[in-house]
Amino acid sequence: MNFKARQNKVREHLATTRLNGLLVSHLPNIRYLCGFTGSAGLLLVQESGSVFITDVRYDTQAHAEVKGAKVVIARKALLEALGEVLAQRKAARRKTAIAIESEHLSVAEKKRLIKFRPASITLKDASAIVEKARMLKDDEELQLIRAAVALGARLFDRAVEVMGPGTTEVEVAAEMELAARRAGAEEMSFPTIIASGARSALPHGRASSRRIPSGAFVVCDFGVILSGYCSDQTRTVWVGKPSEEARRVYQAVWEAQQAGVDAVKPGITVGEVDAATRKVLRKAGLGRFFTHSTGHGVGLEIHESPRVANGQREILQPGMVITIEPGVYFPGKWGVRIEDMVAVTAGGCEVLTPTSKDFLAV
Amino acid sequence: MNFKARQNKVREHLATTRLNGLLVSHLPNIRYLCGFTGSAGLLLVQESGSVFITDVRYDTQAHAEVKGAKVVIARKALLEALGEVLAQRKAARRKTAIAIESEHLSVAEKKRLIKFRPASITLKDASAIVEKARMLKDDEELQLIRAAVALGARLFDRAVEVMGPGTTEVEVAAEMELAARRAGAEEMSFPTIIASGARSALPHGRASSRRIPSGAFVVCDFGVILSGYCSDQTRTVWVGKPSEEARRVYQAVWEAQQAGVDAVKPGITVGEVDAATRKVLRKAGLGRFFTHSTGHGVGLEIHESPRVANGQREILQPGMVITIEPGVYFPGKWGVRIEDMVAVTAGGCEVLTPTSKDFLAV
Repeated sequence: MNFKARQNKVREHLATTRLNGLLVSHLPNIRYLCGFTGSAGLLLVQESGSVFITDVRYDTQAHAEVKGAKVVIARKALLEALGEVLAQRKAARRKTAIAIESEHLSVAEKKRLIKFRPASITLKDASAIVEKARMLKDDEELQLIRAAVALGARLFDRAVEVMGPGTTEVEVAAEMELAARRAGAEEMSFPTIIASGARSALPHGRASSRRIPSGAFVVCDFGVILSGYCSDQTRTVWVGKPSEEARRVYQAVWEAQQAGVDAVKPGITVGEVDAATRKVLRKAGLGRFFTHSTGHGVGLEIHESPRVANGQREILQPGMVITIEPGVYFPGKWGVRIEDMVAVTAGGCEVLTPTSKDFLAV
Repeated sequence: MNFKARQNKVREHLATTRLNGLLVSHLPNIRYLCGFTGSAGLLLVQESGSVFITDVRYDTQAHAEVKGAKVVIARKALLEALGEVLAQRKAARRKTAIAIESEHLSVAEKKRLIKFRPASITLKDASAIVEKARMLKDDEELQLIRAAVALGARLFDRAVEVMGPGTTEVEVAAEMELAARRAGAEEMSFPTIIASGARSALPHGRASSRRIPSGAFVVCDFGVILSGYCSDQTRTVWVGKPSEEARRVYQAVWEAQQAGVDAVKPGITVGEVDAATRKVLRKAGLGRFFTHSTGHGVGLEIHESPRVANGQREILQPGMVITIEPGVYFPGKWGVRIEDMVAVTAGGCEVLTPTSKDFLAV
């Protein structure tokens, strides 16, 4: 990964504003900018160079992982150690404006930082500086995302092997997670959703100890983290003999999902992608059962920018990676959701998820 | 769970201050106070009653889970919906002070809340109001924690069955996680640490694809979430024929850990527990290789109050649940850590972790 180039992009942004530095406290942003994968750290990016501060637990790891920043191992609270780093600057008495990540720094942390910083430093609230850069994946990132998606997709094959009436949801999830681990996944990108029967109508039905009943859908929504990058995929399987209604609704969701994929290209807004899926379901008389947004960005985090939702104005650009995941939910009865990950390309998009979307009954 | 009693405790606290309400935004605190287990919500606790706000994804779930609060399903951003709830109060024009959880609300969220709230409402930064209540577990919570710890402990038996020279770390973790799922765990309480060979000297060495070598320790640090409550346990196993030094260091860590457990009783500070483990390792000439703190509280979160660390002054009280986990790490060589969970009782403590601490070689 070209961490220096990423940090330089932040520096270019700072140069266009009246900011002398950025304090990065959000761990995925820290990983993106300097490679650190641990659970505690602060990265200060300044024109003159970067400093990464962590605690003694991460001494060895930080020195091995961090690129493009001087590593400081703090013997006290990180924000206090940061205050000392700021005070020890060569130009410590010169007036300096440091931006904080206002979406990620808590009110209490900012107060502590105000207490520990030298008086010459002013803190400015900033938002999404690194997140905006992270929206556009470089080639190395796209390769890692493709690998994560490919691994994730294999878990669905395993799910179908073990799934059937009488299996518990959690047993299906366990087999998928074992397969993920064996294939090298660091962990799942979110708690695996295996939602069967009436539970399939819950958009967020984490695997429970219920046995999968016949005569309803099973929504399988799952992902892995591989080399730091997330996958996210949903497929929905019918258990037993499918009804006409089940086939009809599944077909409508599929067409809506495909309409979303077909809409993706540089220059249109994410809101237009959302409108494309919604239009198909509205025409099928199912609009009011599609209760969530169409998708979200994916990368080092399972949910990141852009949000693919009604009215959102972010414009698609090559390198963005988003999910397209419309669903239809009949409360108390069953639900269907189909989700692929796609990467925006110069000419449209590359569908990353390889799994068939044909109606499947087990 | 007696959610109303828990909310009333918050109300009593508010009554002793000049606060008219508390906005709870930290999800574990929300779960503690009203039972909601989803990933998006805000709970407003006021004298006159409580309101819980979530989005459409959690409509069914919130109505099923939430106790002691009116449920509002927001069709817009939660903080904006909260602003409307505040504006619709009967006494909307009366001056009102609402506390926010300053450790959990971000700088940007507070700004948005200031924008959306009615002018009659003043926001006050508060800290750890719910966390302080959560430190003292009630009987129902202790039962759930015992069940989580018992399930977690069984995973170590599985680890020992599959572990040996040549097994990959991640395969051991995968087998443990499969056993956890089959036994009903919701998920692991943190990424499973299986750190072998020189990696055992990393206090936070998540399972990797490395094969376990002979002639070094394997640190196994793992936990499950069962009914919302976390377990946390560490055992360290020698692989191959043990050296004298390995036995000696293991014995010292064990004695340090036992000294920590023996120190636990109501009325002493957590700093004294930390000092008890540290003293044993210092006497054994190993003090400088014990590079982290002795432990932490456990409950709905894997790390919660109190911190069991040098100089910390929190006083132990019956109902607190903490870990005791000293370790010794020789960088580049190997490390040892032993960790139990204990519950503070009137007479001392109950060791929750049932697993033997005898030196074990495989």
